[in-house]
Amino acid sequence: MKQSEPKTLDALAALIGARIQGDPSCLIDGIAPLESAKPGDLSFVTHKQYRKYLATSQASAVIVGSEDAKDCPIPALISDNPRLSLAKAAKLFEKNPMPAKGIHATAVVGQGCEISASASIGAYSVIGDNVQIGENVIMGSHCSIGHDCSLGSQTVLKPHVTLYDNVRVGAHCLIHSGAVVGSDGFGFANQGGTWVKMPHLGGVVVGDQVEIGANTTIDRGFLEDTIIGQNVIIDNLVQVGHNVVIGARTAIAGCVAIAGSAIIGEGCLIGGGSSIAGHLKIAAGVHITATSGVNHSISTPGIYSSGFPAKPAAIWRKNAARFQFLDNMAKRLRVLENIMRSRLQEDE
Amino acid sequence: MKQSEPKTLDALAALIGARIQGDPSCLIDGIAPLESAKPGDLSFVTHKQYRKYLATSQASAVIVGSEDAKDCPIPALISDNPRLSLAKAAKLFEKNPMPAKGIHATAVVGQGCEISASASIGAYSVIGDNVQIGENVIMGSHCSIGHDCSLGSQTVLKPHVTLYDNVRVGAHCLIHSGAVVGSDGFGFANQGGTWVKMPHLGGVVVGDQVEIGANTTIDRGFLEDTIIGQNVIIDNLVQVGHNVVIGARTAIAGCVAIAGSAIIGEGCLIGGGSSIAGHLKIAAGVHITATSGVNHSISTPGIYSSGFPAKPAAIWRKNAARFQFLDNMAKRLRVLENIMRSRLQEDE
Amino acid sequence: MKQSEPKTLDALAALIGARIQGDPSCLIDGIAPLESAKPGDLSFVTHKQYRKYLATSQASAVIVGSEDAKDCPIPALISDNPRLSLAKAAKLFEKNPMPAKGIHATAVVGQGCEISASASIGAYSVIGDNVQIGENVIMGSHCSIGHDCSLGSQTVLKPHVTLYDNVRVGAHCLIHSGAVVGSDGFGFANQGGTWVKMPHLGGVVVGDQVEIGANTTIDRGFLEDTIIGQNVIIDNLVQVGHNVVIGARTAIAGCVAIAGSAIIGEGCLIGGGSSIAGHLKIAAGVHITATSGVNHSISTPGIYSSGFPAKPAAIWRKNAARFQFLDNMAKRLRVLENIMRSRLQEDE
Repeated sequence: MKQSEPKTLDALAALIGARIQGDPSCLIDGIAPLESAKPGDLSFVTHKQYRKYLATSQASAVIVGSEDAKDCPIPALISDNPRLSLAKAAKLFEKNPMPAKGIHATAVVGQGCEISASASIGAYSVIGDNVQIGENVIMGSHCSIGHDCSLGSQTVLKPHVTLYDNVRVGAHCLIHSGAVVGSDGFGFANQGGTWVKMPHLGGVVVGDQVEIGANTTIDRGFLEDTIIGQNVIIDNLVQVGHNVVIGARTAIAGCVAIAGSAIIGEGCLIGGGSSIAGHLKIAAGVHITATSGVNHSISTPGIYSSGFPAKPAAIWRKNAARFQFLDNMAKRLRVLENIMRSRLQEDE
Repeated sequence: MKQSEPKTLDALAALIGARIQGDPSCLIDGIAPLESAKPGDLSFVTHKQYRKYLATSQASAVIVGSEDAKDCPIPALISDNPRLSLAKAAKLFEKNPMPAKGIHATAVVGQGCEISASASIGAYSVIGDNVQIGENVIMGSHCSIGHDCSLGSQTVLKPHVTLYDNVRVGAHCLIHSGAVVGSDGFGFANQGGTWVKMPHLGGVVVGDQVEIGANTTIDRGFLEDTIIGQNVIIDNLVQVGHNVVIGARTAIAGCVAIAGSAIIGEGCLIGGGSSIAGHLKIAAGVHITATSGVNHSISTPGIYSSGFPAKPAAIWRKNAARFQFLDNMAKRLRVLENIMRSRLQEDE
Repeated sequence: MKQSEPKTLDALAALIGARIQGDPSCLIDGIAPLESAKPGDLSFVTHKQYRKYLATSQASAVIVGSEDAKDCPIPALISDNPRLSLAKAAKLFEKNPMPAKGIHATAVVGQGCEISASASIGAYSVIGDNVQIGENVIMGSHCSIGHDCSLGSQTVLKPHVTLYDNVRVGAHCLIHSGAVVGSDGFGFANQGGTWVKMPHLGGVVVGDQVEIGANTTIDRGFLEDTIIGQNVIIDNLVQVGHNVVIGARTAIAGCVAIAGSAIIGEGCLIGGGSSIAGHLKIAAGVHITATSGVNHSISTPGIYSSGFPAKPAAIWRKNAARFQFLDNMAKRLRVLENIMRSRLQEDE
C-alpha cells in the first residue's frame, strides 16, 4: 500500500533485524496487510489471527515469527520480534516531510527563552517566558506554551498542544493535538457548601520517550509535581489527575480516568475505559483489563478485571434486576444449607 | 422562544411537510417547548412524555403525530414524522450569519492547494500542502489542516478543528470544535519492556453528511485507512481507534471508546459511555445501550446491554460484596439441588 | 516547596483564619506536604491518612483541625476548616504573573463588542460580534468566542477555549484549555434510516464562580439554554448534553457523561467516570459514586452507586460468567425453598 523506493529483501532484512527465507533479491516497494497486499508489497503475520490469509495473499514477502516460518508459502523475513520488525519496516515507508527549522514569523516568544536553532516552531504558536526548547524539537502550529516550560531534544508537539506554566517535557516525546498538560488539578475546599478553589502550585514532569494522545489532559500537582515516567505511552482522551505518578513504561489506553494522587508502578497496562481511584498505589507489572474500576491499592503483579460483556438486552435486564437481591439470595442459600445440614445429621 | 418573521400556519405546513388542523392563517413567529411557549410560538409533541403539557400550553400551534391529533386543543401541524418536521421548523428559525467568502488574510495556506472561491477560511487557520477544499466549505478560525487533506462541498469545520495529514472528508459534513481527526493510532511494538512506536501510514476517510462532535478523536490507520461511513453521527468526546470501520448511518453517543480494528455495521446505535473492544465485528442494526462493554463480535441485529443502574450505596455495596462469591454460590446451589434430588428419589 | 517572602506564623494565622499553637514568630517561607517539607515550610493535615507523617516531618508549622492539635509536635495553625485554610495558604504562595491589560495586537474583534479596558485579551484570540467582556477578564491566547457571548468580571479563560455563539458566562469563572462551550447538542431526526440534523437554537448560561475543566464539552440547548448554576465545579473531559440543568454548587469529577435534558439538583457530587442518562431529575444533595450509571430519576438525597471494584482476573471471569444465569439461580433457589418448606410442613 505505502510506496517507497524499491528495496531488496536482503537490504530490508538487515534494516529490520530479520533473517531471510527465500529469494534475497526479491524487490519490495510497498507495505500492506496480507488481505490487500499486491505484488511488490511486504506484509506480516504478527498475530495468529492473520495466518489464514497467508495462503491466498499476493504479498511478495512477509514478516513472520519462527513459528510461522516452516510452512510459509511466501518469501519470509523471520524475526524473533515480528511486531518490532514491522515497526522498523513501517518506518522505512514513512513520509515525514521535515518542517522548516526556525521560528515561524507569526510565533510569539516570551522573555528569557532558550530555543535551539535546530528547533522548528510553527505558525501562531505562543510561548511564554523562560522556556527552554531543545535540539530538533518540532512544535506544530497553534501551540500554547506557558512560562518556565521545557521541551527536550527531538520532542514533537503536534498542532494545538497546550502546556500550562512549569511543565517540563523530556527528550524524544510526542504529544498529540488537543492535549492539555498542566491544567489545574480538581482540588477545592468547601466553606458551608460553597466551593473554594485550591491554587495548584505544582507542575508536571514528563520523562523521555513519552507519547501523549490527542485531547488527553494531565493536571498539575497541588504542591508537588504530577510525574509521567520514562517511555510511558498514553492514548487519547485520558485524564490524569493532580499528583498522579505513572511509572516508567506503563501503557494507558484510551478514555482512562486516573484520579488524583494515584501512584502507578512501572510496566503496567491500563485497559481502555478503566477508572483508577485516587490515593492508592498500584504495583509494577499490573494489568487492568478494559472498562475496569480500581478502587483499592493492588500490591501483587497480575491481571485484574471488573467489566461485564454485553448480552442481549432482555437477558441482561433479567439478570441485572436480580442483582439487587444477591445479598438476600446469599443469605437464603445459607439458610437452606443449614436446614439441609441439620436434616442430614438427623438422618445419621 | 426563537424569533423570526411571522409565518402563517399553512405556509409552515408546506415548509415542514405537515397537514393543518385548525386555522391556517394563524401567525407563528417563534418556536418553543410546550411548557414555556407563548402566544405566537410553534411547539411540538415528539414524545409521549410531552403530552401532559398540551392542555395548559400557550403555544399558538403544535407539531404532533397523528396519534395526538384527535384531542389536540391547539391548532396542529400533523406529521407522519413529527421529529423530522420539528427539525425543518427549527431550521426556519436558525440565525446563521454566513461568514465572508474567501481566505482570511491571516490564514496560512501551503503549496499546491485547490480552494474553492466560494469557501470561507477563518482567521488563523493553517492549511498544509496539496489540500483540496470544495464549494461553500466554511472553515472556522484556528483550524489546522495537514497535507493531502480534502474537504467536500458544503462541509463546515467549527473553530479549532485539527486534521492531520491525509484526512479526506466528504461533502455536507460538520466537525465541531476541538475534534482531532487523523492522530496516530495507539500502536506500539515492545522490545524487552520498552515501547517502540509503530508509525501510522494510513489516513482517515470520512463519508458525506457525517457529523463529528466536539473534542472527539479519530485515529489514522496503521497501513490502511480508518473509515467513517456516510451519514454517521458521532457525539462529543468519542474515541475512534486506528483502522476502525463505521458503517453508514450509525450513531455514536458521547464518551464512547472504540478500540482499533473494530468493524461496526450500518445503522447501529452505540449508547453513551460504552466501550467497544478491538478486532471484532458488529453486524448492522445492532443497538448497544449506554455504558455497555462489547468484547465479542455481535452477528445478530438487536439490543445488547451490560450496564447497572445506580442503587442506594449501602444496598449496592452489600450486593457487590457478594458478587465475588457468585461462582461459589452457583456451586453450592447445585450441591443442594443434588442432595434434594437424591432425597426426593429415596422417598419414591 | 513553594517559595515566597517569609511570613511569621501569626501573620499567616490571620491571613488564613486559624489560631496559633506554638511560637508566633516562627518564620515560614514555603509550603509542602509533610513527607517532603523542609525547615521553613508550612504543611498540613487535612485528612487522617497524613497524621502518620507528623512525627518525622521537618515542617516548621502545620495546619491542622482541632482533633489533631493536642498531640501536635510541630507549631500548629489550628483551623475549623483545615482544607479551607490550606487553600488560603496556598494562595499566598501563588505566582500569578498578571498579563498585560488590553487587547493583543493580533486578536481579532468583531462588531459591536463591549470590552472592558481592564480586560486582557491574548494573542491570536478571535472574538465575534456583540460580545461583552467585563472588568479584569483574562482571556488567554487562541480563544475563539462566538457572537452574542458575554464574560462576567474577573472571569479567566485559559488558552484555547472555544465558545460558540450565545454563550453567557458569569463573573469569577475559570475555564480551562480545550473546553468547548455551546457546541450543538446531539439531536437528530430520522427519515427512513437517514439522520437529519436538528438545528440547536438555544445557548448556554454559566453562572458565577463556575470552574470548567480542560477539554470538557458543554452543548447548547435545542430551543432553550443549557444551564450551569452558580459555583458549579466541573473537572476535565466531562460531557454535558443539550438542555442539561446543573444546580448550584454541584461538583462533577472527570470523564462524567451527562445526557441531554438531565436536571441535576444543587449541591450534588457526581463521581468520576459516571454516566447520567437523559430526561431524568436528580434531587439536591445526591452523591453518585465514581463509575456509576444513573438511568432513573433520584428523588431522595443520599449516596448511590453501581460500580464494581476490580478483582484478580481469573476470579472475576468466573463470577462474571455466572452472572448471565443469575435469574436462573434465583428461580432455582425459590424452587428449593418451596420444596424444603413442603418437607418441613410434612414433618409437622
